[in-house]
Amino acid sequence: MAPLTGEPMPEPHRIILLAHGSSDARWCETFERLAAPTVASVPGARIAYMELADPSLEAMIEEGVWEGSRAFKVVPLFLAAGRHLRKDVPAMIKALEEAHGVHITLTPPIGENPQLGEAIRKVVEQELAD
Amino acid sequence: MAPLTGEPMPEPHRIILLAHGSSDARWCETFERLAAPTVASVPGARIAYMELADPSLEAMIEEGVWEGSRAFKVVPLFLAAGRHLRKDVPAMIKALEEAHGVHITLTPPIGENPQLGEAIRKVVEQELAD
Repeated sequence: MAPLTGEPMPEPHRIILLAHGSSDARWCETFERLAAPTVASVPGARIAYMELADPSLEAMIEEGVWEGSRAFKVVPLFLAAGRHLRKDVPAMIKALEEAHGVHITLTPPIGENPQLGEAIRKVVEQELAD
Repeated sequence: MAPLTGEPMPEPHRIILLAHGSSDARWCETFERLAAPTVASVPGARIAYMELADPSLEAMIEEGVWEGSRAFKVVPLFLAAGRHLRKDVPAMIKALEEAHGVHITLTPPIGENPQLGEAIRKVVEQELAD
């Protein structure tokens, strides 16, 4: 039910799925397929790449700002955190927040969520059944 | 029901979950947690690392041979295939097959299975609910 007050609904965070990026188009196609269920079901969700592929994280923040978003959650499509997620991406995010006047939250990499371990178990069970 | 013939059951493939490896213990701990549901539910399943961490793929093949396995499936804990999975790992596997007289199948990386895209969607839905 819609709220009865006249206040605007708080804007949800816009989701950006962040992959590393590669000059290999096949690599990026795999990530686009990985992102597809989220992009199809979460309004405004997009994929972006750290480097070596388009669209960039900055391009997707700019698109979100243009469409009215001021708060973003960047969800790394990485199985574990290395130097990129501990240093490079936080620095990119700080610069983007300052440049665009937005709030950007960096979530843990997807591999730290137990959903991923369960998905791996299902993949293995399919491989054993084949 | 057990088969009534006296023939031995075909030995199932032993599963090895192959991660890249890192000198950062936190990185490896994330992969061990990712592997845990599979290791807990699939008899003989193990994690191994390509490089920079133990146990190595060779050590896990040797363990399997010692325990009676002659056929292995290596399931890459990679979201997409790059140079490692197209070149380096197939070469490692060929050398291990020759050295140990075993059959090793390299499956596609986990990120090419639709289960992973569904898991990512669930992770994002959890992030939006927080």
